[in-house]
Amino acid sequence: MVNLIRDLVPNPLRVVTPDYAEKVLGRHWRPKARVDVVPLGGAGGRILAADVVSAMDLPLFDRAAVDGYAVRAADTFGASEGAPVELKLVGSVWAGEWPSLRLGKRGCAEIATGAPIPKGADAAVMVEHSVVRGNVVDVYRPVAPAENVVKRGSELKRGTKILRAGQELTPAAIGTLAAVGIEMVKVRRRQRVAVISSGAELVLAGEKIGRGQVCDVNGPAICEAVKACGGLPSYFGIAPDEASGIKTLVRKGLASCDVVVISGGSSAGAGDIVPEAIGSLGKPGVLVHGLAMKPGKPTFVAVAKGKPVFGLPGYPVSALMVFDQLVAPYIRRAAGLPPPVQKTVRARLGKKLLSARGRHELVPVKLRRRRGELWAVPISKGSGAITTLSAADGYFKVPLEQEIVEEGSIVEVTMFGGG
Amino acid sequence: MVNLIRDLVPNPLRVVTPDYAEKVLGRHWRPKARVDVVPLGGAGGRILAADVVSAMDLPLFDRAAVDGYAVRAADTFGASEGAPVELKLVGSVWAGEWPSLRLGKRGCAEIATGAPIPKGADAAVMVEHSVVRGNVVDVYRPVAPAENVVKRGSELKRGTKILRAGQELTPAAIGTLAAVGIEMVKVRRRQRVAVISSGAELVLAGEKIGRGQVCDVNGPAICEAVKACGGLPSYFGIAPDEASGIKTLVRKGLASCDVVVISGGSSAGAGDIVPEAIGSLGKPGVLVHGLAMKPGKPTFVAVAKGKPVFGLPGYPVSALMVFDQLVAPYIRRAAGLPPPVQKTVRARLGKKLLSARGRHELVPVKLRRRRGELWAVPISKGSGAITTLSAADGYFKVPLEQEIVEEGSIVEVTMFGGG
Repeated sequence: MVNLIRDLVPNPLRVVTPDYAEKVLGRHWRPKARVDVVPLGGAGGRILAADVVSAMDLPLFDRAAVDGYAVRAADTFGASEGAPVELKLVGSVWAGEWPSLRLGKRGCAEIATGAPIPKGADAAVMVEHSVVRGNVVDVYRPVAPAENVVKRGSELKRGTKILRAGQELTPAAIGTLAAVGIEMVKVRRRQRVAVISSGAELVLAGEKIGRGQVCDVNGPAICEAVKACGGLPSYFGIAPDEASGIKTLVRKGLASCDVVVISGGSSAGAGDIVPEAIGSLGKPGVLVHGLAMKPGKPTFVAVAKGKPVFGLPGYPVSALMVFDQLVAPYIRRAAGLPPPVQKTVRARLGKKLLSARGRHELVPVKLRRRRGELWAVPISKGSGAITTLSAADGYFKVPLEQEIVEEGSIVEVTMFGGG
Repeated sequence: MVNLIRDLVPNPLRVVTPDYAEKVLGRHWRPKARVDVVPLGGAGGRILAADVVSAMDLPLFDRAAVDGYAVRAADTFGASEGAPVELKLVGSVWAGEWPSLRLGKRGCAEIATGAPIPKGADAAVMVEHSVVRGNVVDVYRPVAPAENVVKRGSELKRGTKILRAGQELTPAAIGTLAAVGIEMVKVRRRQRVAVISSGAELVLAGEKIGRGQVCDVNGPAICEAVKACGGLPSYFGIAPDEASGIKTLVRKGLASCDVVVISGGSSAGAGDIVPEAIGSLGKPGVLVHGLAMKPGKPTFVAVAKGKPVFGLPGYPVSALMVFDQLVAPYIRRAAGLPPPVQKTVRARLGKKLLSARGRHELVPVKLRRRRGELWAVPISKGSGAITTLSAADGYFKVPLEQEIVEEGSIVEVTMFGGG
């Protein structure tokens, strides 16, 4: 096991690319596809865990496709505008009723769209092509056998696979399940994500802020980001700045959740207390510490008690961007969700940008229309400022090896929030 | 009032375009922007109902931007690698603490990132540029006043508008609110939508299906579509096929919801019972009956008791497509939501298509890759078949005046389900 990590990463704590981090984690942990059985009304947006086979034919009976008269087709042959065929009206069939009548020769029955074709009939005449006189109906156009009839099973045969495992339950898919009488549906379980903040200076939103203290931003923001990628967040609060307290909270998270996300306390120096505490929870421990990405350097990835623990930077902007790049794809994949629809726009860079070689850089930008063109203006408030992120419209990526992006060059901006 | 409709629509029951229907409805009903006050943890994805102004400076105190030593900048002037300045270590300040110490001349205090700068100090020296020897610290580089300090209010001044009414509460926006200690937030109220199905042949999903009966598809499918566009659905069940029963159910819907959506029973013939029943609920009644759109002809739009009632076709495929075109934009707008992110792809039409002049046609298609190109193959099962919609990847629009779309011509396919 430890050998295996060594094979992959000569020094497990060296700075690695996000792709590499993903690969290392993949060797130690694969999300298990668990199943929830939920009522149809609560299944929207979830992912089917199993193929669905129809237990019934659709339609379940031969039904009229028009309002008009159920007839024996042969009786109408030869009918024309000039020489209508005269049929005897023997009753009516409404939608929702099961007809007890049976058509004899030259008989007909009034019928509504969707109503069952009565015994003896094999077609329907549209009301527009007939005239009723008391209990006689004049038919002005012939119909072929099965004309204006939707035959049993013509849409769907019993035993047909109607939806595949892995499909998202859209309104149309929910309708399809309802059509074949399905009430309960097997869907992929969402990942339960324990969200923990660390930092002795933090207080919970709504608590009194003492002198020297600040509100926890990452807890609420990351919980929201977990929901947005299809996970179920549980906020475990603020870990103290000492190993035993951190371990207690992370252990709690591991006990009841599938994934733990802890932010803060993972940068160089005194802050290393968090990855150290998690490393001591058991093998394989910390797999990656340090991402070749800006923001995101202090990120770590660990596996403890068979579950992944993601350590995010303490700065909110960094924490949210690393979450989107590194954690969200796991949560989506584990829940069977497809990659998100990301809107990108091409824009000209508003000012020259210097980027460090050897790491990806994600640059938050504001979009501005100037001289008929779209410009992306980098936001320079720094990753310590949460307002950076709420002011940004999106971000663009500077690749690992690029050091300079010239003013006016075209960049591809990924919009935040699917908007 | 009635005159007003006449001005707009010489015959209020003539077939009109969806845009026109929207315009007529707009004269009789504008969604009211109501407000919910919700806790931050439940506000994700909602739309702010009011601007948010910060009641505090951010940061709330001058804080260290690095791990190192709080100093008086002037004391470090002249320090160099060869000639460090010697400062007296008088204590330490940790994040979350309020320092009681005060720096005198040539004093310094150990300080952690995020901790308050103690009185007397005006800068911080990075730990990397110092060496500690007992209670003496050698500083190897000078710092300017305010260097490595984040000043109170430098990110945000009290009284600054931090978020605008109409913004969606993304994870970053939730973080911004948390940062300034906000617990409860004013958001636009979602539209409560009463969903009613009509048809004597319908039974609820999960109920025993009697002979001649079919499961209600539209109820569950439309409820899901309401959720997907940001509304709150209430399923009111199945209306019987007679006026008084329909009126009772629609009245119930109007009493507790903002919008009523009823499907089925609005096509020509006996089915006209639904718009008739709704028309009798009061003025202005039915504003539009019949859309120049395929599917969607039997659609109607009414206003009763000051609230809109949308009548959708009974066929599930038609009902869902008309819902998306006509109803969803209203529900989104009333909740303050932006238009959905719709993914479109360009594809070649798989077979020649004939479309009726004088109406828009929405053609559901399956996408196929053939000879390196994307082809859109129309699904021909018809709007009666719910499986049409769940088999389709998306649809393209044939404009009002176009009658033929040639095989191989390029069409713009809007993908279903945001995917």
